Amino acid sequence: MNDAASGTEPFDVVDVIRAKRDHAELPDAQIDWVVDAYTRGIVADEQMSALAMAILLNGMSRREIARWTEAMIGTGRRMDWSGVQRPTTDKHSTGGVGDKITLPLAPTVAACGAAVPQLSGRGLGHTGGTLDKLESIPGWRASLSPDEMLSVLRDTGAVVCAAGADLAPADKRLYALRDVTGTVESIPLIASSIMSKKIAEGTAALVLDVKVGSGAFMKDVESARELAETMVALGTDAGVRTVALLTNMATPLGLTAGNALEVAEAVEVLGGGGPDDVVELTVRLAREMLEVSGQGGAKDPADALRDGTAMDVWRRMIAGQGGDPDADLPRARETHTILAPADGTLASLDAYQVGVAAWRLGAGRGRQDEPVQAAAGVRMHVKPGAVVRSGEPLLTLHTDEPARIQRAVDALDGAYVIAPAGSRPDLLPLVVDRVS
Amino acid sequence: MNDAASGTEPFDVVDVIRAKRDHAELPDAQIDWVVDAYTRGIVADEQMSALAMAILLNGMSRREIARWTEAMIGTGRRMDWSGVQRPTTDKHSTGGVGDKITLPLAPTVAACGAAVPQLSGRGLGHTGGTLDKLESIPGWRASLSPDEMLSVLRDTGAVVCAAGADLAPADKRLYALRDVTGTVESIPLIASSIMSKKIAEGTAALVLDVKVGSGAFMKDVESARELAETMVALGTDAGVRTVALLTNMATPLGLTAGNALEVAEAVEVLGGGGPDDVVELTVRLAREMLEVSGQGGAKDPADALRDGTAMDVWRRMIAGQGGDPDADLPRARETHTILAPADGTLASLDAYQVGVAAWRLGAGRGRQDEPVQAAAGVRMHVKPGAVVRSGEPLLTLHTDEPARIQRAVDALDGAYVIAPAGSRPDLLPLVVDRVS
Repeated sequence: MNDAASGTEPFDVVDVIRAKRDHAELPDAQIDWVVDAYTRGIVADEQMSALAMAILLNGMSRREIARWTEAMIGTGRRMDWSGVQRPTTDKHSTGGVGDKITLPLAPTVAACGAAVPQLSGRGLGHTGGTLDKLESIPGWRASLSPDEMLSVLRDTGAVVCAAGADLAPADKRLYALRDVTGTVESIPLIASSIMSKKIAEGTAALVLDVKVGSGAFMKDVESARELAETMVALGTDAGVRTVALLTNMATPLGLTAGNALEVAEAVEVLGGGGPDDVVELTVRLAREMLEVSGQGGAKDPADALRDGTAMDVWRRMIAGQGGDPDADLPRARETHTILAPADGTLASLDAYQVGVAAWRLGAGRGRQDEPVQAAAGVRMHVKPGAVVRSGEPLLTLHTDEPARIQRAVDALDGAYVIAPAGSRPDLLPLVVDRVS
Repeated sequence: MNDAASGTEPFDVVDVIRAKRDHAELPDAQIDWVVDAYTRGIVADEQMSALAMAILLNGMSRREIARWTEAMIGTGRRMDWSGVQRPTTDKHSTGGVGDKITLPLAPTVAACGAAVPQLSGRGLGHTGGTLDKLESIPGWRASLSPDEMLSVLRDTGAVVCAAGADLAPADKRLYALRDVTGTVESIPLIASSIMSKKIAEGTAALVLDVKVGSGAFMKDVESARELAETMVALGTDAGVRTVALLTNMATPLGLTAGNALEVAEAVEVLGGGGPDDVVELTVRLAREMLEVSGQGGAKDPADALRDGTAMDVWRRMIAGQGGDPDADLPRARETHTILAPADGTLASLDAYQVGVAAWRLGAGRGRQDEPVQAAAGVRMHVKPGAVVRSGEPLLTLHTDEPARIQRAVDALDGAYVIAPAGSRPDLLPLVVDRVS
């Protein structure tokens, strides 16, 4: 007799798997039960992975996705920021290469009057993670108690730290399972994973940065838009004011991909400099975050970057989590520079391949428990659209282990295209679309 | 870095899962590797179950199925009966309710001159298992060493026993996994599971009894025919002369479903009596087994049942495995009889529901490691097409545990339909089709 038949559980998981496999819509009670039972260990990993594959191939309705998300939130606690005097607002990126935007963005938004309580993540595969980047700052701690988190948020207006074990624990387990079972690339599962964490995080407003292009989960604009619409609906239905931008991840953001390399670039932006695309996206996302949290008429984010107030918040935020904002960042023992093979215009620089190169240099990880190198990564000397001359530096590879250089070089085979001088490459704009 | 990237394994299982998920055909080398790596524990259960769900939903080509079958055989040893002087032939049923055919069939075929080296299985869910049935005979042992198996086969011409751990071990593990992950109902996986064991068993010829109807895996004739054609092709390609019959499993076979109850019925058939459908299917399958093994002109199976030679083989075969053919069979402590509620013609008696009732009475199991009751089961007093009178017995339930009666009665709700007297129900023939 199975568990359901013997009366100890209300459902038999094999019936739930079969229903989704056979294209049925799962009733609310089955969704609530299967997510909770998985967290309790009643539903085994091999059962959840079969269900995840059935969901990936057969899809879920909007109602199923919303219920699945709620069920994942319900396996843990929902945070509460009513003790903070400012309106809360947050941003989430679906992940890309060189995406250090959170680093300048959170202090900038705080400098304009809102509070940013961000629970962030680590990198996996070719995509980087905000916590990995910040951990390259000597002394900085990702893990804070709820009281510490509240204290930093009250003192500085922004906090970026790791989620506690009690934030949507079902998602934590399911995310690790999907990673090893080929069930990552499902819009219902991606949307519910992201939104369960962001809703449980307790922010009142949310801006989603949905990446599109080779370096993103979503390779084309249509699927990125579907993901964005799904997540905006989930947030709105859960009482979180949510908008999404679709942004370009065909080529890396900024001129660095790696941990310490990206922190240094973020600090340049906070100091009023930095690459144009990083500045532009930071300002654009900051304005959206302020607008959606009802602070649209407050100070403009571009001014906060220019006048040093964003940098002040950054320094206090880093120090509040044990970091030394004045410490030297780690530098790689080994570098290797790739030179332009011809004169012309850089027509493209592939985000995915640069991400894989940074990973192979040591900046990323293949499994969730692997360590990363703080100093490893790729520095880009030019961006698509720029004029290059034969023999000029294109990319510099950084690593602590010389043996990794060749594998990174291999990953970059065909990653850049140099077109005849004077040609104008057809490049995706930085912000492709807005969904609200 | 994943296993493939780090060089210890030739492939990364996530790549294999993704390929099948995305509708690709798996190359031979990937199939060989994934089946072998699963047996070695390199591929985890949660990865294989995701792959199994992708196979179930996206299918496999004939080439993929053949290679998957070969790969499963290759994880163990292939048996060899060249030491037996007679031609070998076997039968496999895809499983049904009341399907005790192997019991009279194997001795009958042996009495006609062929050798039957049958590795058989246990029941699961609503379907019964030949080994469970035979184990209701006092002293009978399912587990034999290869030498013991050869000895019984040489002495009697037939042996029915459990497969050793080294017969297609990948299939053993995968079968248990599919059972708990909703991935049983896949023609490629069913066909490769059955045929890997039958080819590894070493029989030179094989007759497949593919059941169709409510009590079978295959509910409709089209899918039963697809399964039969797939398996006949697999056998033929592997050098095993193979044919298949599609037979009726809309209603149970014979008048009993249970373990000791079915042994008693089989002994009636071996004694020249027994229900017409059991006798007819035994003779039909025996003729096919003799024909496909090149013994078509030998003694006719109907004669072997009539003249007592099949019974002689049965008695020696049971005794050869420690059983006492003269011992009384276990009898249930409790019985409960369901009476006909009206006069008329029994229009239908649902095989699946009778199978579930027998299971709930204790004759079957929900998980592979559960024990079964020898005496539990259902005795049918009439078959579809028969005239019934109000108040006459329809079904008698047998169990050692009175508390199980009500749950079996519930399982039989709506299982039989009594049509007005004189009506002629539209019944499927016993043998629906033949595939060769």
